[in-house]
Amino acid sequence: MLDELKQQVLEANLALPRHGLVTFTWGNVSGIDRARGLMVIKPSGVEYQGMTAEDMVVVAIEDGQIVEGRRKPSSDTETHRVLYQTFGDIGGIVHTHSRHATIWAQAGLDIPAWGTTHADYYYGDIPCTRLMTEEEIRQDYEWQTGVVIAETFSRRGIDANQMPAVLVHSHGPFAWGKDAADAVHNAVVLEEVAYMGIFSRQLTPDLPRMQQTLLDKHYLRKHGANAYYGQ
Amino acid sequence: MLDELKQQVLEANLALPRHGLVTFTWGNVSGIDRARGLMVIKPSGVEYQGMTAEDMVVVAIEDGQIVEGRRKPSSDTETHRVLYQTFGDIGGIVHTHSRHATIWAQAGLDIPAWGTTHADYYYGDIPCTRLMTEEEIRQDYEWQTGVVIAETFSRRGIDANQMPAVLVHSHGPFAWGKDAADAVHNAVVLEEVAYMGIFSRQLTPDLPRMQQTLLDKHYLRKHGANAYYGQ
Amino acid sequence: MLDELKQQVLEANLALPRHGLVTFTWGNVSGIDRARGLMVIKPSGVEYQGMTAEDMVVVAIEDGQIVEGRRKPSSDTETHRVLYQTFGDIGGIVHTHSRHATIWAQAGLDIPAWGTTHADYYYGDIPCTRLMTEEEIRQDYEWQTGVVIAETFSRRGIDANQMPAVLVHSHGPFAWGKDAADAVHNAVVLEEVAYMGIFSRQLTPDLPRMQQTLLDKHYLRKHGANAYYGQ
Amino acid sequence: MLDELKQQVLEANLALPRHGLVTFTWGNVSGIDRARGLMVIKPSGVEYQGMTAEDMVVVAIEDGQIVEGRRKPSSDTETHRVLYQTFGDIGGIVHTHSRHATIWAQAGLDIPAWGTTHADYYYGDIPCTRLMTEEEIRQDYEWQTGVVIAETFSRRGIDANQMPAVLVHSHGPFAWGKDAADAVHNAVVLEEVAYMGIFSRQLTPDLPRMQQTLLDKHYLRKHGANAYYGQ
Repeated sequence: MLDELKQQVLEANLALPRHGLVTFTWGNVSGIDRARGLMVIKPSGVEYQGMTAEDMVVVAIEDGQIVEGRRKPSSDTETHRVLYQTFGDIGGIVHTHSRHATIWAQAGLDIPAWGTTHADYYYGDIPCTRLMTEEEIRQDYEWQTGVVIAETFSRRGIDANQMPAVLVHSHGPFAWGKDAADAVHNAVVLEEVAYMGIFSRQLTPDLPRMQQTLLDKHYLRKHGANAYYGQ
Repeated sequence: MLDELKQQVLEANLALPRHGLVTFTWGNVSGIDRARGLMVIKPSGVEYQGMTAEDMVVVAIEDGQIVEGRRKPSSDTETHRVLYQTFGDIGGIVHTHSRHATIWAQAGLDIPAWGTTHADYYYGDIPCTRLMTEEEIRQDYEWQTGVVIAETFSRRGIDANQMPAVLVHSHGPFAWGKDAADAVHNAVVLEEVAYMGIFSRQLTPDLPRMQQTLLDKHYLRKHGANAYYGQ
Repeated sequence: MLDELKQQVLEANLALPRHGLVTFTWGNVSGIDRARGLMVIKPSGVEYQGMTAEDMVVVAIEDGQIVEGRRKPSSDTETHRVLYQTFGDIGGIVHTHSRHATIWAQAGLDIPAWGTTHADYYYGDIPCTRLMTEEEIRQDYEWQTGVVIAETFSRRGIDANQMPAVLVHSHGPFAWGKDAADAVHNAVVLEEVAYMGIFSRQLTPDLPRMQQTLLDKHYLRKHGANAYYGQ
Repeated sequence: MLDELKQQVLEANLALPRHGLVTFTWGNVSGIDRARGLMVIKPSGVEYQGMTAEDMVVVAIEDGQIVEGRRKPSSDTETHRVLYQTFGDIGGIVHTHSRHATIWAQAGLDIPAWGTTHADYYYGDIPCTRLMTEEEIRQDYEWQTGVVIAETFSRRGIDANQMPAVLVHSHGPFAWGKDAADAVHNAVVLEEVAYMGIFSRQLTPDLPRMQQTLLDKHYLRKHGANAYYGQ
């Protein structure tokens, strides 16, 4: 069942240590089959080395039931479910504790759009959520993590298709994309811009955002109807 | 004698350079057989490459006598002995000069609990000891290093089972766990949170600790009776 | 056609990931055949792995027409064309988003000449361009990027032969040299001095430039008529 | 002639890129045969890959004449000569532009003794030389670089046997030891303490030196008559 999607999700998970985004079993990637309303996600707390497609777990988007799989799904599965329900166009999600994106999340700050590397992938500041309430943390914590992400995008009027990542306050990043591999790609770029942002701000403490015209230029030459980058 | 423990301690020692925690012969890992009152520890100043289980040294916890081994044990053996005597549940100890944990130790500061990566493993701030007195340094230095660690936990009411690491002021970290491999695992995480803490604080100089509720949530979902992370 | 140049440009492009200067398909290197008025450049958005000399694209310097190649040239081709037209002695150009050079570009700052590593390759501060105007960004953006680089050198009286790199404000570095390989060499050094500059300035916030005499000594012992470094 | 020394010096040079201390052909190591008054040093501007013992150059300590070798010796040969003449017990010298030691050199600051990693190898602050005068730079620059190092040790009463490294202002580090391999070992440690010092100071800007008693304890347990570290 969903053999191709399981293989894609497996490979996307294995790409995480290769890109230096995870330590030990941290991090998880999922992919969705929207027609069937099912997601495939990494099992919880399993080593990347030796992981196979059969270790992947199939979960129903609507009710979170495990449809197939001999293992427990990632403890962050509920967060993935909310994101798939809320952001109707995304096909893959990745969560990591990658060092520099996590640093911004711990500091509780958005990553401002400070250069064209950022603008090539992220159409504006990468948002950091508010702190979660005691109630949200105590009840359905992983589900509420998804809810606070959704609220951040809704309240601030951000389009998840143009902003494929978020920082969860005091925690770390989630990134997404058209499929699992694309989500990982965006997570790698996020880590790059997070790194560069820390030291750009060190050099110029009150660094203003990049020009809106330049942000438009770079984002739109790679995305949307008038894109002209690539083959 | 203690062949299995020697093999475990050897492998834990060899994991140190693989995780980038040590340079040259720095660092050492030990494991304990509590039933027999014996610890197995790395020899002093020996290269990791080519090290074998036979190089490991067996030392009596009670009096520090070398029970078996053709080499001198690590110069930090006395510190390990105090920790095994004081923290009755731990099964393995590691000492490194890993870069970022050592930076906090040199700065003489606790590593505040600033995010869920920290909270997944460390139930509160990771303590830094006070400066040692001239007398402590001059007499039985390595033993007194253990004593000042024990004092730190006792005076501040910290449970070593929930706080498996310490920073020795002007020196570097010790970490521990249920066995030698687990101690190394905790030392790797310590280095991650030490790195992220330096730059979280750079971004937000007066960064408050994470919420207690969030710390509880993450620590307790991985540890203790109600843990639900992993398989 | 231009088989040798294509091979050189291919190899110079492949050197970028090996030196850690690029992520994914970012970055591009070109080389010029001045006698024929042709440049060879990397195709746009193509993976480094598996890239061959046949993927390289031949472009006319004068009018930007694609003379040979089955792929679209790099989106930065127009910038390369301006640089080849303006700086008559250079034989190769590289553009990357290498982390630390890009940090200075994002901060909008020149990299001051702060040490002999810098002076061995760059005869003075490495300039950062001014912000581009809205018009420059909206019309012929990539061409105008070259124009603003040319303007920076002309207005500040900098000799491109003695200053083989520039930072484009809010974007990243371009470097050049006598051929494609030399351009990559200079891009590697740029990244080194960019890294060291960030932390030299952290240690001494108002760090003055190095002595002019020392800058002269190091630059001129490696470059020009009286050079005596190397075999 | 001096085949064993050439092999040692070759291997010490090849260790530089392996330890991440050099880029391209930067850096050089030499070793001395005091009985014959000869040093063996790396050739100038030659790639590490493919370098052989026959590429090493034999130079007379007294007058700097090339006694054997088909290549030009390192441009820093004169600096090495002064150090061998001045510091009568050292057997090997290494010069690199390793990133973090060079950062301190560019900032013109001593590296304070801030922890036991430092104290295990360096008996006090690692000194940075004064700026060289215009005359020193213009005449016999490489020789005068050695002279300003010698002056730093003499004027400040530092024993080169207990302080096996120096930072040359605006330039980078020289390190030494009982032979070429030991010099490289000390250069690796220097880079470690340079890295850790930058961020220790970031965490605690007015960080006082470590306690003298602790510095004594760590330095003397590894060096001198009463050392007890190692086998």
